Amino acid sequence: MGQHKTEEFRKVNVLMKVPALRDGSFTLAESIAILLYLVQKFKTPDHWYPADLQKRARVDEYLSWQHINIRAKGSKLFLSKVLLPLITGQPLPPEKLEFATEELNVALKQFEEKFLQDKPFIAGSEVSLADLVALVELMQPVCAGYALFEERPALAAWRRRVEEAVGKELFLEAHQEIMNVKNLTADQFAPELLENFKQQLLKQN
Amino acid sequence: MGQHKTEEFRKVNVLMKVPALRDGSFTLAESIAILLYLVQKFKTPDHWYPADLQKRARVDEYLSWQHINIRAKGSKLFLSKVLLPLITGQPLPPEKLEFATEELNVALKQFEEKFLQDKPFIAGSEVSLADLVALVELMQPVCAGYALFEERPALAAWRRRVEEAVGKELFLEAHQEIMNVKNLTADQFAPELLENFKQQLLKQN
Repeated sequence: MGQHKTEEFRKVNVLMKVPALRDGSFTLAESIAILLYLVQKFKTPDHWYPADLQKRARVDEYLSWQHINIRAKGSKLFLSKVLLPLITGQPLPPEKLEFATEELNVALKQFEEKFLQDKPFIAGSEVSLADLVALVELMQPVCAGYALFEERPALAAWRRRVEEAVGKELFLEAHQEIMNVKNLTADQFAPELLENFKQQLLKQN
Repeated sequence: MGQHKTEEFRKVNVLMKVPALRDGSFTLAESIAILLYLVQKFKTPDHWYPADLQKRARVDEYLSWQHINIRAKGSKLFLSKVLLPLITGQPLPPEKLEFATEELNVALKQFEEKFLQDKPFIAGSEVSLADLVALVELMQPVCAGYALFEERPALAAWRRRVEEAVGKELFLEAHQEIMNVKNLTADQFAPELLENFKQQLLKQN
């Protein structure tokens, strides 16, 4: 944990964040850019990033929107519920947790009404990168203990469809670490990393 | 001003934000998704969104990174310096303004070191959507009175290259409204819109 804060990793991504990709001498940061690169490089099945202009626009629209909505609010709740208490040794004040939950709820409502609507998937009848990115981000607050799918049957049905499209085993494998996040203890972090996280988190909250 | 908060506009974008595109019965939100749609629909010259996999990845990398960096920090400074004082009738406390400026400076440093480096443009030797999006966002804090290009000669040279690539007249035309933003007065906003803005801004700051 924390290998992305080393000098060795700086050569792959000067921003020192994960994920990052190295393909020969070519390096690339930003998860969305990496996914688009992989889809095009390996010519994956069309539905992941459709050639059809309007379907592709639906995927791009979600991938653009999610940064400051599902992603930002989902991560914030995850940090607030799990990492911040772990690192500071104190639970977050209830009103801050409530505010972070409320912000995520607003994004979830927009996600349902604007992006999913009554379609099986964001781009229509088939799964795409947009669904993949959306579900992976939502697993952060879920694994932090916010059972957001329980009171949202349409979202829960969409989650099952995405899991089936990806394959349940692969889905579980990919989420194994984050599913165990509640078992993390502060001594699993290097002290300087802990201090670094602490400063960053306190600044944001 | 504020036409995007009407019911008529809701039909184009249920998120009620600008920009939004309507092409026949197809509607699309999110500026990045709209640019990608237009580039592909009108088959614009390759350099705007290169077919070359690695050059395209450089554009996607910037377009993904900018959301929570240049865009978020640039808008925040703009709101803090111009809109919030206008709407509340009071200047922002200096320490808040300083913090917003410092956050933008961090993003500007990453932009220079990671994205621009010593290349003429973000994707290499030719202008792309990434440069366009970057410069348009930076014009927000500039028009709010933060002369960020003055102490950054490499960025200033890049700005001149982008302006020339776009065409200086078109560039000026596109920025006319924002360049006059300091002449805005509160009575140019409808009262309910003003109240709406005020609530939103106060929540964020």
